[in-house]
Amino acid sequence: MTLPASVRADSAAVESHLASLFDTLPGPAAALACSMRYATMNGGKRLRACLVLAASRLAGGGQLCDGVMHVAAAVECLHAYSLVHDDLPAMDDSDTRRGKPACHIAFDEATAILAGDALQTLAFGILADPGVSEDASVRARLVTELAAAAGVGGMAGGQMLDLEAETGTPSLDEVRQMQAMKTGALIRFAAVAGGIHGGASAALEAALANYSRDLGLAFQIADDLLDYDSDTESLGKPAGQDAARGKGSFVVLMGLDAARQTAAELITGAEAALAPWGAAAADLQAIARFAIERRS
Amino acid sequence: MTLPASVRADSAAVESHLASLFDTLPGPAAALACSMRYATMNGGKRLRACLVLAASRLAGGGQLCDGVMHVAAAVECLHAYSLVHDDLPAMDDSDTRRGKPACHIAFDEATAILAGDALQTLAFGILADPGVSEDASVRARLVTELAAAAGVGGMAGGQMLDLEAETGTPSLDEVRQMQAMKTGALIRFAAVAGGIHGGASAALEAALANYSRDLGLAFQIADDLLDYDSDTESLGKPAGQDAARGKGSFVVLMGLDAARQTAAELITGAEAALAPWGAAAADLQAIARFAIERRS
Repeated sequence: MTLPASVRADSAAVESHLASLFDTLPGPAAALACSMRYATMNGGKRLRACLVLAASRLAGGGQLCDGVMHVAAAVECLHAYSLVHDDLPAMDDSDTRRGKPACHIAFDEATAILAGDALQTLAFGILADPGVSEDASVRARLVTELAAAAGVGGMAGGQMLDLEAETGTPSLDEVRQMQAMKTGALIRFAAVAGGIHGGASAALEAALANYSRDLGLAFQIADDLLDYDSDTESLGKPAGQDAARGKGSFVVLMGLDAARQTAAELITGAEAALAPWGAAAADLQAIARFAIERRS
Repeated sequence: MTLPASVRADSAAVESHLASLFDTLPGPAAALACSMRYATMNGGKRLRACLVLAASRLAGGGQLCDGVMHVAAAVECLHAYSLVHDDLPAMDDSDTRRGKPACHIAFDEATAILAGDALQTLAFGILADPGVSEDASVRARLVTELAAAAGVGGMAGGQMLDLEAETGTPSLDEVRQMQAMKTGALIRFAAVAGGIHGGASAALEAALANYSRDLGLAFQIADDLLDYDSDTESLGKPAGQDAARGKGSFVVLMGLDAARQTAAELITGAEAALAPWGAAAADLQAIARFAIERRS
């Protein structure tokens, strides 16, 4: 399936915004700036950025507020940082990312550590910048929410639990919690941040949180299904890698059919959360379906 | 020399505040939380936190504002993150820190990478929290300033230039710029953040920036002098380590006497920047002198 033209336009706009951003990084550390660009401009789908923009448009009555593109860029920088560090030899030890050399292969390990570090810093710097919103309380809230999503109680904590799971036999509930932190928290942030920036009502913000919680888990199950199904060529990373390293994948824990069914049910739940907003939520509904129907 | 009782009390208060902070980290990633505590509660002098508090007290007419302790804690978390990542095998490859096993030795490399990552996240999360200040524009500005100090144009960029210097022959100006980014930017942030939080006038904020710029460079020269002078036992890390790795130390580039004299002149400059504030700036003046007279 393909995404609606509006979402594809959002993705292209984010791509262009990110390119400009990396043209204007300050300071003399050119190699570091280069590695940050390499790690971020990696041909990703910009799913998280598209969530920010679609949620913001829904909250804003069909219009995008000025400054929300910065929020979308910040989420992609944070996501890029997490991929660079996850790929490091001491972590998942992955030499490729989307069919290209991982950052620590294209540069070196020290540069990759610093690239991830500086991308995280950049994400927070972007969110707090007055260009995001005239309302400082919106900027501060976005920083608070991203810190909760990315930190020890979110993404970083989830990666820690994932590493620990390699040497144990995690239960389905444990894997569910780990993935909610590792992958789900940032996806949730993306949708909620778009809502916050667009001035969502409390009801819409809660609906976006429910939508993105279900979407995040479905997205991870779909990832495990792709990992199981795909060969290295079509996915751009060694297939079955997670299973080979003994991690608890949803496919291993639930079986193929149950994993497929659960992902579909979660997306039905995500769609239901936004049903009261009808056609105005069409882009978010399309992103949800895309998450489980994509081929890479 | 010893620091004034007020500064020592600040240091103890920060220590206690940090301990409480690490008691209340969210989520199930207990090993990660444990490594974050280990990396931060490492017997450091809390120089940066003391700068925050002393600058805030100066700006606030002798009183500390509520919430500034959070700012001090955030700076220490950011600093701790930088030490954990700097010590990694791919970076400076240092097995000890303050005479104790470095984080990646006490835990493992993956945990240390994540501990640094999550400490950085925590620092930004703390700054944006409403507990710091009722004024969201103060919180957002602190985040903006910390991001500028820590990112590609500041600390992370400086570490990149430092790694590059290992394979080259950096000039004195290059080393000065590198250290202004790697070490100076966060010291500058600490003093300026205290001023911002305490409601400093534009004149005081500019003076704090000048004070801390000179202090930061003097602090690094003093570090190089200690590195040159000390033996492993008294310093807690292998003496002469930087020189052995071919890095441009100020002592190597300037010679011992010129390095000592330059550090003393910089501290005279730092003191002069705050001279108009007289005795109210006594704590900051004492911290400046301590920076070059300390023995570790």
